[in-house]
Amino acid sequence: MRAVDIIIKKRDKGELTREEIEFFVQGFTRGEIADYQVSAWAMAVLLNGMTARETADLTLALAHSGEMVDLSDVVEIAVDKHSTGGVGDKTSLVVLPVVAACGLPIGKVSGRGLGFSGGTLDKMESIPGYRCDLTTDEFKRQLREVGIVLTGQTPDLAPADGKLYALRDVTGTVQSIPLIASSVMSKKIAGGAHAVVLDVKVGNGAFMENLKDARELAGLMVKIGELAGRKVTALLSDMNQPLGCAVGNALEVCEAIETLRGGGPADFREHSLRVAAHMLILGEVAADEQAGRALAEQSLADGSALAKFRQLVGAQGGDVSYVDDPAKLPRAALVRAVDAPRSGSLSQVQARSVGEASVALGAGRAQKDDPIDHAVGFVIHHKVGDRVEKGEPLFTVHASDQKRLDAAIASVLAAHVIVDHPVPPLPLFYE
Amino acid sequence: MRAVDIIIKKRDKGELTREEIEFFVQGFTRGEIADYQVSAWAMAVLLNGMTARETADLTLALAHSGEMVDLSDVVEIAVDKHSTGGVGDKTSLVVLPVVAACGLPIGKVSGRGLGFSGGTLDKMESIPGYRCDLTTDEFKRQLREVGIVLTGQTPDLAPADGKLYALRDVTGTVQSIPLIASSVMSKKIAGGAHAVVLDVKVGNGAFMENLKDARELAGLMVKIGELAGRKVTALLSDMNQPLGCAVGNALEVCEAIETLRGGGPADFREHSLRVAAHMLILGEVAADEQAGRALAEQSLADGSALAKFRQLVGAQGGDVSYVDDPAKLPRAALVRAVDAPRSGSLSQVQARSVGEASVALGAGRAQKDDPIDHAVGFVIHHKVGDRVEKGEPLFTVHASDQKRLDAAIASVLAAHVIVDHPVPPLPLFYE
Repeated sequence: MRAVDIIIKKRDKGELTREEIEFFVQGFTRGEIADYQVSAWAMAVLLNGMTARETADLTLALAHSGEMVDLSDVVEIAVDKHSTGGVGDKTSLVVLPVVAACGLPIGKVSGRGLGFSGGTLDKMESIPGYRCDLTTDEFKRQLREVGIVLTGQTPDLAPADGKLYALRDVTGTVQSIPLIASSVMSKKIAGGAHAVVLDVKVGNGAFMENLKDARELAGLMVKIGELAGRKVTALLSDMNQPLGCAVGNALEVCEAIETLRGGGPADFREHSLRVAAHMLILGEVAADEQAGRALAEQSLADGSALAKFRQLVGAQGGDVSYVDDPAKLPRAALVRAVDAPRSGSLSQVQARSVGEASVALGAGRAQKDDPIDHAVGFVIHHKVGDRVEKGEPLFTVHASDQKRLDAAIASVLAAHVIVDHPVPPLPLFYE
Repeated sequence: MRAVDIIIKKRDKGELTREEIEFFVQGFTRGEIADYQVSAWAMAVLLNGMTARETADLTLALAHSGEMVDLSDVVEIAVDKHSTGGVGDKTSLVVLPVVAACGLPIGKVSGRGLGFSGGTLDKMESIPGYRCDLTTDEFKRQLREVGIVLTGQTPDLAPADGKLYALRDVTGTVQSIPLIASSVMSKKIAGGAHAVVLDVKVGNGAFMENLKDARELAGLMVKIGELAGRKVTALLSDMNQPLGCAVGNALEVCEAIETLRGGGPADFREHSLRVAAHMLILGEVAADEQAGRALAEQSLADGSALAKFRQLVGAQGGDVSYVDDPAKLPRAALVRAVDAPRSGSLSQVQARSVGEASVALGAGRAQKDDPIDHAVGFVIHHKVGDRVEKGEPLFTVHASDQKRLDAAIASVLAAHVIVDHPVPPLPLFYE
């Protein structure tokens, strides 16, 4: 078998066999197949597509490129969740403690932010001392003893996926649905998940900008799950406006804690309850969505979810006094509320523009390994469909200096569109 | 400007600007744009195509990646020829001395064989001492003083093209008409050609297997010439059966000398006369094809073309006694004539199979830098459309050992298809 023949087969719209895909991924992992061959192949995949069978074989080959975590000696059903990423998406911070409080042990590997989209690990690191570098043994022990884990990927988890992603990032081959699906699912499978709730975001603040692509991605990941013997539930949720109000690391931790205390923005609370309910179903703790949702609501009402979050922070070395008193979290030097320039109905709060503005403030990364500022970000006070009055606060900026503050105000004002006619609210979920 | 954005633009079927193409080629030449980015881009070009304007800009950018040879102080009109490569194609060995004998000074840079297709330099090196590594200064001096040059490419001639070709070879991106066209034309333009006759081969023994692709390639190269201010004439010629009778380095030199002496196979003689006539037109030595052809025929009849070939060999260090007595050329240990297994009409002499069989004998290279055996090859005695009688010699094999001889006999017998009904001959030219 030769790498070039596999590239040519895909270039000519052929369907690759499992053996060809394994040969290619193994060769790439071992450094025997060159980066320039893999990038040409990735472009051919992007332009010519892959079948669900090919994508499932790619997923398994990527998963098997490193350590395959086995959680069956720790939990009965290892349930995981994955969001395709968006702006203001702090769902894991609420959902994990909720399901853990409902009796479903949950260990999750998360990522960092890149581009306009935030990352769960960056948010958690707003809490001093919080460690995101647990080893697999530490992960298992904490999952067994505490019932909740939220950490970063070990270098040996699907290393071929990491290598392939880095290459795709610089060769224009990120936007391929089969490559995105196999990347997500390979990490979940290598991480030992038996069942996964996928939260596929769709809108201008997501990687999938239209419903057709999001549906295709969701369907493909469910199919990969089936072919790989994993249960997968996919939700399609809106990402045209930020989720909740807070955008920025410490601000989002604050909002998550408010929500765990039973408060928080209505849309974010509702979103978290729905995701939690589906995880409880997959974990066989609840029989249906209604039952799962009732359990989840109860955990917010009785403080058990908040207690679980506090346990998580403590177990991973974080200072729990920050959970008890979120006002201690890093706070930006400049905090400025910006008023609505006119009265009317909000027809848009463009998530992508808000996400990009928060990166510009220093809350995110333009390049991997860029440092981030945990304190900065925005609180968006209104949702699409809301009536706003001129002079009422529209959003609040948290910035480190005047120059960035001014730029952020301009960008986020432009992201808000106010019109005269009434506007219906955006749906929270599409399917 | 960023390389990844240029890749994405082509991935999304955009038309690249001249500035983008120059940035990309210059970055690649300097090693600032990585191989893995260039290969992803090449795959996008292969699958999404390029306009003639983009291809012309790419051609010029590749040409300008190294030395730009200026021949205007040496010759009035620098005419060049290029064949897209085939089996038994020794045209340059006859055409160059013919046009030089007709008063048109001609300097040509040729290549080596790769795959089933032979290379002019390998053929010339059958003559002991013949040098293919002339410097640009030596090239110019010989062109001025002797009026004929036939040598290899200097490393500084369109280096980006060499680098790109090596990458395309291992990433499944060779078969792209815009990339083939720009590769050919960039070397001609960097080499100083003012006008070029392109001999585009079509058939199973050529890189273009069908007339549609060959026509597209020819049309694109003519268009590039127009956009780059060069006169280009393209001929489409058959490569379903070998050109002439000899296939193999020394055997082809022998056949070329026979032809220069006024003999040689009818098809090869005719092919050479047509190409020469078009070169004489572009060089403004002849007004039309008829006049060019008459001059060319005259040079074969009066021995002036043969004398020019002898001068060429001498000027480049070759032993001219081999021209005077071609029987001195390397001769294989085993020479075996193979008879027709039945009577009938020849309906096929598959050029590609014959080319591959000659590589298997050692006449060509499977990989760059493989050594070659100048002595081995075939003489094919009949053309498609000929009537053959059982027991009559069909072809002769020149081999270095019994094992290769046996394998070659089997392959080349299979390449000959004899049928009962009469078969029309193949055309020499299509357009």
